[in-house]
Amino acid sequence: MTSIQSTDYFIHFSDDAYQQLNNYLTNDEISTIFVLVDKNTHEHCYSKFLNKLSTKKEMKVIEIKAGEMHKNITTCVSVWKKLTDLGADRKSILINLGGGMVTDLGGFVASTFKRGIKFINIPTTLLSMVDASVGSKTGVDLDNLKNLIGLFSNPEMVVIDYNYLQTLSNRELRSGVAEIIKYGLTFDSKLLIEIKKDNWKNISKLNVIIYKSIVIKNKVVLQDPKEENLRKVLNYGHTVGHAIESYFLEHATLENLTHGEAIAIGMVIEAYLSHKLHAFPLTELTSLKEYIHKTFGKTGIATEHYTDILGLMKHDKKNINGSIRYILLKNVSDYIINATAPTELVIEGLDYYNSPSNSR
Amino acid sequence: MTSIQSTDYFIHFSDDAYQQLNNYLTNDEISTIFVLVDKNTHEHCYSKFLNKLSTKKEMKVIEIKAGEMHKNITTCVSVWKKLTDLGADRKSILINLGGGMVTDLGGFVASTFKRGIKFINIPTTLLSMVDASVGSKTGVDLDNLKNLIGLFSNPEMVVIDYNYLQTLSNRELRSGVAEIIKYGLTFDSKLLIEIKKDNWKNISKLNVIIYKSIVIKNKVVLQDPKEENLRKVLNYGHTVGHAIESYFLEHATLENLTHGEAIAIGMVIEAYLSHKLHAFPLTELTSLKEYIHKTFGKTGIATEHYTDILGLMKHDKKNINGSIRYILLKNVSDYIINATAPTELVIEGLDYYNSPSNSR
Repeated sequence: MTSIQSTDYFIHFSDDAYQQLNNYLTNDEISTIFVLVDKNTHEHCYSKFLNKLSTKKEMKVIEIKAGEMHKNITTCVSVWKKLTDLGADRKSILINLGGGMVTDLGGFVASTFKRGIKFINIPTTLLSMVDASVGSKTGVDLDNLKNLIGLFSNPEMVVIDYNYLQTLSNRELRSGVAEIIKYGLTFDSKLLIEIKKDNWKNISKLNVIIYKSIVIKNKVVLQDPKEENLRKVLNYGHTVGHAIESYFLEHATLENLTHGEAIAIGMVIEAYLSHKLHAFPLTELTSLKEYIHKTFGKTGIATEHYTDILGLMKHDKKNINGSIRYILLKNVSDYIINATAPTELVIEGLDYYNSPSNSR
Repeated sequence: MTSIQSTDYFIHFSDDAYQQLNNYLTNDEISTIFVLVDKNTHEHCYSKFLNKLSTKKEMKVIEIKAGEMHKNITTCVSVWKKLTDLGADRKSILINLGGGMVTDLGGFVASTFKRGIKFINIPTTLLSMVDASVGSKTGVDLDNLKNLIGLFSNPEMVVIDYNYLQTLSNRELRSGVAEIIKYGLTFDSKLLIEIKKDNWKNISKLNVIIYKSIVIKNKVVLQDPKEENLRKVLNYGHTVGHAIESYFLEHATLENLTHGEAIAIGMVIEAYLSHKLHAFPLTELTSLKEYIHKTFGKTGIATEHYTDILGLMKHDKKNINGSIRYILLKNVSDYIINATAPTELVIEGLDYYNSPSNSR
């Protein structure tokens, strides 16, 4: 597949990507190579990566704990210290091999180590391939607040290798499907139809779907790299979804939700707001809810949690002067940026999500 | 005094600076104003600042502990949390009112809060006026490693108000004099002569000296903002000086050194290296040592600490492939970038600094 040019770096695919990577690493401006992995990617992806890598430079591995709950400053401190102990200098490069947690955190750590060293992202999950790896957002959570600390910083390149997807469980794969539904809803009705046909379950069709998703995301990022306007559209489902994800993350007694599962719920609720406030078609709304219930299962959100979830939305990064903002839809691929919605309607939306798929 | 243009912001002076600031704050793109102070600047500078400020916008103060030992990630976390609790959004602005610790840390916190909010620096110490406030370096220490975590990020403007200097002790004032000696040694022999005449003790002459220093620093930064080459010259005295500062910082039993005192020692030792390796004139070397001993006092560096101090230099950000690099001088304002020196000579340099001023 043809490489995709982003702001000032390329997204390369499959074997060609490793050729580009190996070639890049011959650069004299690079001293030592550091590879950041988590426990899972160390076990399941690192040897695949080594098979493709060809370099004479010194390479060192840094492993962090897996899971969103470790995407925090404490983990950053441990990586900064490890880099220091292992003698990293300004010409060292960090290769982030993992899901969005590894690429987000690794990008932040690299961009702030000695005022910034270079980094490369190699996403290993569907979610990070279609989302985190492209668009230069780096960062970590602060307590339960998602990505509160971070910055925009470009990788030197992104390597997309579909073979890593074989290491994923079905649940991890589904987590990425949620973001692809988002691209369909906001920019590409055909892509939405493909997903609803479950084409993503067929690996060769999935490769094309991933490529299309990256093209969409990249187009948006190129037009608005710092998320001042258009890029906010990619936050569809995230105003409510992030709050739900944060809430489940901070309550150990609740079942644990993947990012995609939380965003899927957020998308149904924000589609409900869109229907009530901007006439988003009822058929699209019910079809979305049905597909999401079928694909992701229905997570029970007890009414006693509603207030806390609404409270977490007050920290959403899109808020303006304390007012909560949403991306809402008039129709598929017809969006409104910086939309508002009454709290009562969000509560109705939560109820709507909780109700069975065959009811309104 | 005429405003100085830097990369994409201005450094404004005295009353004009507050006019510029007040005017800037009328911008609709700014929601809430946050002022970051430490315990000292809250007590001694904040009311002076309020007298000059004129805004209808909501303003909130965040206080942190004073002192280099608090320039760390723990303090950053407390400020990020405070910003969150006080409802800061992406359109909030952070005004850093304080010395280099406040402007460095505040710049870093702002640049990484919700992927970056705007900030303004109002340096209140001589050191931060002539150094930290200009040049876009932000960051904090990691354990005893100076500025290990940080990034380059521009303030919206810098406000220089000489009146804050009245709040400083003589020792704090002297700390800034060390950096001015550095500008003299590396770029401006006349400035060096002025300093050696103790002209900085006269407030009106000091104002001109500050202005000249900022002009020098700004010229260098404009030519090499990311410190890829020329800007390294501003690190004269810092390879050894930072290691000494770190060492004293981590040993609570040793007397506590200001940044300037540490850099003053570093400059003498690096002048010694310069003399031995690149024929830096002996008269300049002895005159420098004499002036620094006279002005900053002589800090005893016991020989049993030498190894640890040399060890800390291994983490200097200028190092290349593990090799320690210095800025050395062939003469006043005639420098060498990325110079090396044998360890034995650094030990001799430490001995040289420790010996009385009238000896070689």
